[in-house]
Amino acid sequence: MELKNNYKKLNIDWIPQKNINEPLYKQIIKYFNMKIASGDWPVGTVLPSQRDLAEIFQVNRSTVTTAIDELSSYGVLEGIVGKGTMVKSNTWSLMLPQNISNWGNYIQSGTFKENNHIIQTIKSMEEEKKFRKISIGELSPSLFPKNFIQNSMHKAVNTIDNLGYLESLGLYELREIIAQRLRRKNIDVGPKNILITSGSLQGLQLISICMLKAGTVVYTESPSYLGSLQVFQSAGMNLKGLSLDSDGVQYWNMDRKDFLENSPVLYTIPTNQNPTGTIMTPQRRQDLYDFCMENRIPIIEDDAYGDLSYNDDIIYPIKSLDENGLVIYLGTISKILAPGFRIGWIVGAESVISRLADAKMQVDYGASSLSQIALAEILSSTKYDDYIADLNEKLAIKRNLMLASLEKYFKDYATWNTPQGGLFIWLELNKNIPIEKLFKEAAEHDILLNPGYAYDYEKNRCIRLSFSYIENHLIDETLLSLSKLIAKYFM
Amino acid sequence: MELKNNYKKLNIDWIPQKNINEPLYKQIIKYFNMKIASGDWPVGTVLPSQRDLAEIFQVNRSTVTTAIDELSSYGVLEGIVGKGTMVKSNTWSLMLPQNISNWGNYIQSGTFKENNHIIQTIKSMEEEKKFRKISIGELSPSLFPKNFIQNSMHKAVNTIDNLGYLESLGLYELREIIAQRLRRKNIDVGPKNILITSGSLQGLQLISICMLKAGTVVYTESPSYLGSLQVFQSAGMNLKGLSLDSDGVQYWNMDRKDFLENSPVLYTIPTNQNPTGTIMTPQRRQDLYDFCMENRIPIIEDDAYGDLSYNDDIIYPIKSLDENGLVIYLGTISKILAPGFRIGWIVGAESVISRLADAKMQVDYGASSLSQIALAEILSSTKYDDYIADLNEKLAIKRNLMLASLEKYFKDYATWNTPQGGLFIWLELNKNIPIEKLFKEAAEHDILLNPGYAYDYEKNRCIRLSFSYIENHLIDETLLSLSKLIAKYFM
Repeated sequence: MELKNNYKKLNIDWIPQKNINEPLYKQIIKYFNMKIASGDWPVGTVLPSQRDLAEIFQVNRSTVTTAIDELSSYGVLEGIVGKGTMVKSNTWSLMLPQNISNWGNYIQSGTFKENNHIIQTIKSMEEEKKFRKISIGELSPSLFPKNFIQNSMHKAVNTIDNLGYLESLGLYELREIIAQRLRRKNIDVGPKNILITSGSLQGLQLISICMLKAGTVVYTESPSYLGSLQVFQSAGMNLKGLSLDSDGVQYWNMDRKDFLENSPVLYTIPTNQNPTGTIMTPQRRQDLYDFCMENRIPIIEDDAYGDLSYNDDIIYPIKSLDENGLVIYLGTISKILAPGFRIGWIVGAESVISRLADAKMQVDYGASSLSQIALAEILSSTKYDDYIADLNEKLAIKRNLMLASLEKYFKDYATWNTPQGGLFIWLELNKNIPIEKLFKEAAEHDILLNPGYAYDYEKNRCIRLSFSYIENHLIDETLLSLSKLIAKYFM
Repeated sequence: MELKNNYKKLNIDWIPQKNINEPLYKQIIKYFNMKIASGDWPVGTVLPSQRDLAEIFQVNRSTVTTAIDELSSYGVLEGIVGKGTMVKSNTWSLMLPQNISNWGNYIQSGTFKENNHIIQTIKSMEEEKKFRKISIGELSPSLFPKNFIQNSMHKAVNTIDNLGYLESLGLYELREIIAQRLRRKNIDVGPKNILITSGSLQGLQLISICMLKAGTVVYTESPSYLGSLQVFQSAGMNLKGLSLDSDGVQYWNMDRKDFLENSPVLYTIPTNQNPTGTIMTPQRRQDLYDFCMENRIPIIEDDAYGDLSYNDDIIYPIKSLDENGLVIYLGTISKILAPGFRIGWIVGAESVISRLADAKMQVDYGASSLSQIALAEILSSTKYDDYIADLNEKLAIKRNLMLASLEKYFKDYATWNTPQGGLFIWLELNKNIPIEKLFKEAAEHDILLNPGYAYDYEKNRCIRLSFSYIENHLIDETLLSLSKLIAKYFM
């Protein structure tokens, strides 16, 4: 690469201001950006040495190093051996340090910034094999019904003679089998009431951008599933938490002022709630529905964990009460079978589904046809019901193992629920301890856990324990190790 | 359903205003909405008869009917036999008639509203079997390499022992094989420079929301691919067209004022452009790159049609010239094999790709793992290269058939190009004729075509002819029929 300039010609006649709130290194980054974006310092420009820059800017050398390191990480600057630091890119990379778009703002800021940060950290750590993962809200790979799925997929593959775009609502056969299965839950809908999405997070996104005004108050359980909170927030919604009791969400705590001014919406996970495992009772469901009907509060019902049930109680979704299009219902295959299909579904009134389908086409032209064809084959098989029954038995065993270990090691430190379904036990410590510190200590002992505050509107003293991913023989020793780490804070 | 009210109690003391711009039926819709949204008319409320309403509102009965029909189509009202019209839903459905969100506004309005409308019409007509489709920008199902794909997929299925989420950039093996294939195009990148997307439209969406400020000027070829124009527009970008000549886009027509004020971006399809089929020459690519480098104009290069080449010329992408991260490159499997995988890729600097990957995770947690696993198997096979060679031979034959028919029937009415690749012939009529009328007449003769104005910033006298989808034996008779319809306008 041609070196177009020499630093002696740069004529830097600026120094950062020491009496303002903005850190010196950030001011230097902005100055560099401005000079590069304006074209004053074209690509190939060699900067003065860090020592010289520190002198010119009248700052510590480490301040200059921090600024240059950050711009290098964005690809704006590059160190060239024997030649110093050079301007490497003056376009896309230069956009990275700035909060330039709505999305950028969202990622960089907001109530859930910190939560987002810890969740991102956990996600990247989840890729590492060494950890015993009681954090991860997924089924263990060992629960995957390999033979059944491979056989179904081979069958599906044999039917593929092209792979075009599908109808805008998604594969008809898949919607039909989903409608059949929904009727077992007392939800009486047809294929036209169903839109296939690329996972249920996308369902929430479509509802947010398509149906809700910016500033709409979205009530959620507190704590609730962070992914959904983020998607609402990125669409400019105003999130408010409602406390939970053992019967479900305390809907009556909604602020009546919102009813008049902000036309609020309720987002709820009534069955096997993430993260608390709460199951809303039939009575609470009816009361909640009547309350929302009377006050014209639309409901988004997330039933991601509905099929994960460890007893014989049948509790129908809120949607089953709904004759009036009050409820939009979200389903997914991610928690009951595998997230890699990236398939979810939105169920609602035809007119609403048709509008959401239009938006979906404009976002990504539909979910993977291959995933949809495979899943239609899988869900049509009676073996799928056998699989669910077997899965729930295995998960109940995992739950029991974890409960037994909790009973052995945690009685003095915490309380917890006995979930009747879902993937999680919600552990509440008996006193406040520095959970971030515990998280790090656990990680040093190869245990990955999910601090409960990541799911909440305020700090709490909870940990979300997942029993679905970790192998059975590791559960007891993992909880023993964790209890020892926690015990230290109780001495 | 309980009927909660009687219309005699409704006390309607409002009439629409006749001297304002807003149509009477829309005013009535708004009034109904307001009464229902406020709770004054709860679900179950029975409205007065249409005759009575017409009298109360002092309008024609047809005006009332129009309003009620529209609200019924949204599911807000419902006709009950023997009981009149009833309020059916007062929540989600009520949100439909309004332009409430950014997305809603976008769908309902904007420069490309009309284009969007005609494209939507065509898309829905494309689902009907009866049409001879010279509109559709896809490969014919008969070109699908069924045996090769089924065999590859069976192989892929045998490797599946679970289907979890993948790394945030997408399946490593897929990114690796894409990187290998990109190196054949002189693009020297590794897996870390590649983000797998759910189709390349999503790639554009991620770039828009993540990297570009609202109001950014996006230059595109004029005409260009409508899907991309819409996604930019929905993200609040300011679109401007640049004319094309046979060497490619006339980049020098960018407005220098934008350079200073609006930090513009260029979106280009340099190879086998949609819809004109233009291939940008190597010299124009170099000149364009130098110009954009000098003026710090980031480039988005869409190479969807790059592998569809009907001669032996090898023209490298603009990205191959790029040492400085100026170009973000988009690829896809949709045009060369099948859109049903819903897989595309974004190629760029590591830092940029990593930011886009974060956003992608927040949108849909990644593209279908199943699609990615299948595609990695397919692209790794040497048979894939054989398939492309064979496909291009077959497409060249289809192109030649269409050119021969044009030569026979269109010489007096139009001019056209001889595309060296891609899927389209761009037909320019010798005079302005009412193309919308022609579209309808063609549809009556079971011919589906794409009016060129749908792709353009202003009206034009063009038609985009696709030779890739229609079966060979139908090409000649279809163009003969079309020429007869056009001939009438030249008499």
